Amino acid sequence: MEVAVRSGVETVIERLQRRCASDPQVLPLSGGLPADETFPVQALAHALSEIGPSDLQYEWPEGRTELRRWIAARLHARGAEVAPENVLITNGAQQAIDIALSLCSGAGDAIAVPKACYPAGLELFRSRDVTPVHELLAATAIYTMPLIANPTGLPLSGEERAALLASSLPIIEDDAYAELRFDRLTSAPLLAAAPDRVFHVGTLSKTLCPGLRVGWLVVPPGERDNARRAKQRSDLQANTLTQAIVEKYLARESFEDRLDTLASFYAERCEALTDALRRKLPWLRFRNPAGGFAVWVETEEPGDDTEFLATAARHGVSVDPGGTFRSGANDEPLAFRLSFSSLPPSAMGDAVNRLADALFDYQKQGQKARRASGVAA
Amino acid sequence: MEVAVRSGVETVIERLQRRCASDPQVLPLSGGLPADETFPVQALAHALSEIGPSDLQYEWPEGRTELRRWIAARLHARGAEVAPENVLITNGAQQAIDIALSLCSGAGDAIAVPKACYPAGLELFRSRDVTPVHELLAATAIYTMPLIANPTGLPLSGEERAALLASSLPIIEDDAYAELRFDRLTSAPLLAAAPDRVFHVGTLSKTLCPGLRVGWLVVPPGERDNARRAKQRSDLQANTLTQAIVEKYLARESFEDRLDTLASFYAERCEALTDALRRKLPWLRFRNPAGGFAVWVETEEPGDDTEFLATAARHGVSVDPGGTFRSGANDEPLAFRLSFSSLPPSAMGDAVNRLADALFDYQKQGQKARRASGVAA
Repeated sequence: MEVAVRSGVETVIERLQRRCASDPQVLPLSGGLPADETFPVQALAHALSEIGPSDLQYEWPEGRTELRRWIAARLHARGAEVAPENVLITNGAQQAIDIALSLCSGAGDAIAVPKACYPAGLELFRSRDVTPVHELLAATAIYTMPLIANPTGLPLSGEERAALLASSLPIIEDDAYAELRFDRLTSAPLLAAAPDRVFHVGTLSKTLCPGLRVGWLVVPPGERDNARRAKQRSDLQANTLTQAIVEKYLARESFEDRLDTLASFYAERCEALTDALRRKLPWLRFRNPAGGFAVWVETEEPGDDTEFLATAARHGVSVDPGGTFRSGANDEPLAFRLSFSSLPPSAMGDAVNRLADALFDYQKQGQKARRASGVAA
Repeated sequence: MEVAVRSGVETVIERLQRRCASDPQVLPLSGGLPADETFPVQALAHALSEIGPSDLQYEWPEGRTELRRWIAARLHARGAEVAPENVLITNGAQQAIDIALSLCSGAGDAIAVPKACYPAGLELFRSRDVTPVHELLAATAIYTMPLIANPTGLPLSGEERAALLASSLPIIEDDAYAELRFDRLTSAPLLAAAPDRVFHVGTLSKTLCPGLRVGWLVVPPGERDNARRAKQRSDLQANTLTQAIVEKYLARESFEDRLDTLASFYAERCEALTDALRRKLPWLRFRNPAGGFAVWVETEEPGDDTEFLATAARHGVSVDPGGTFRSGANDEPLAFRLSFSSLPPSAMGDAVNRLADALFDYQKQGQKARRASGVAA
């Protein structure tokens, strides 16, 4: 019943999200999509012009060698010793998390997650009957985004990091946004400190483009065969063509230059959003992100995600509802994620004006409802 | 322990298979790969030159609309009424089977499978704790390739088809090779007869090229949301770029012409293989395939897949070992799959000569071993 109710709410929320996404009048502060205009269309099309028959054929489950070597070399530069044999190419980070989960936990287990957590991760854990919890002591595994978290855009503190490493639990380290710090200081992954129990997840979805579905999982050496088998069972292998395109692209372009460009690009959008929020909604609680695509906002208002999403949509702005980022019962105060990634800086003030109107309306409706039900305000 | 032993054997077999695949001296009668020379490299590269930013962005879990419409229209032409909304784009057929399995069975269930069955399907079922069985009465679901089976290349008989439809069980219908009948008579899928309980699986891996990883699952209307959710949890969505490429390709090229060409192409290879087998190994038992990529061979010899594979490799030919296609304990007589798809007709006689030598050696080794252990021949 709990599941049915949750699923019913999600369907309504999904319907609202889809309606907003298809309506060009709605300014998107939702979705967390990378900006279309950053995609290297020409360079990728050029790589595409060089394809041959072997780029269209079946491939081994672990993925193409050159790409796995590139990933291992990048992690090496960050202090982690990774053999290319222990890298598995996946369909984006989500599949890497799924495979890691299947290797380090089973039905009935509990996984420690951040208080505000990547929603598709939470969905996945629940669907595999692995309960998201906030206490390390209650957990059999850990899911974390140590360098840049989604939705907060913030790194773990030194203490938090030390606590995770002090536990002996397997760790799923989701590094999806790690290279999108505004200051470009991408530090060592947890993998460097605990290679025997960290399942390291990476992706090109945020740094290159998501439609390629190129992600990866680095597993402890003893899990290599299990990881390949899990991938094979799930869908045989990652896309040969897009792996080939990425290899050709990386052989010609400077990925570091690209990351520099992206860091400035998103830092500007982030500043535009946070400035507008401070100017127009000074009472909202949020912290300045260190990177990534979004700001996590918490309020003291009673939380009704569906109502808030519908109100925002009426005012021509979309947000991501807080409940989907939370692992517990949905009785916490209103929170939401605001993505700055897909809106130009010039539109940010307008979007935040609409958000302010939506919040005002939402508060008014709540006060009315409480008066109607006889609850003192 | 059973699993460990099986897994150990598979690792040895996999190692042999990888060694054969990387050795240009070994003639491949294994693998079931489509022929590289059939891939429409130029037409796909042309489609690629037309990509834009939206072809590189995130996409909804169900996949792109035009592609889902094309799939629904093709099934409509074969007598199945399919709403595009009930089509889910997957990473090839394997993921479609995985999602279908998750929707129609659970741990502890049993699934009815053919006596000789697609190996990655068997692997998947076992990994989800769903036991492959041969009796419909013992099963809670059915897996079948009704039009062209892998490894036999043969359709179900009318009686077999009727028996499956007479049961009230959910059916996973794997249609991967259905459009590769040599006579080009692709009949109605089971989906047309039982749309409320058939999970229909299709793919472009055999008809276009596998590296694109474009497959699909058609689900009963009531399962649509569950299917989308399962896809989202697994890896968010299928590859946007390759879906876009396929849409552009299909808008310009005649898929029917392509299927005609492929049917003649593979029919010629099939005939070259079966002729060579009849000429050089007249005692082997197999039936002429009606389509697909392979011939399924059964013998009376004692079965030792690892030994046979190693012997074949020494003689410069690779085959797919029978045990991987079988669901029971591996104590049945020697069987194997011979793929004609990736070898030109001119090389087939040579490959079968090597196979004949390998079989001769294998028989001799077996007789020696039986004599040594005191068993009468």
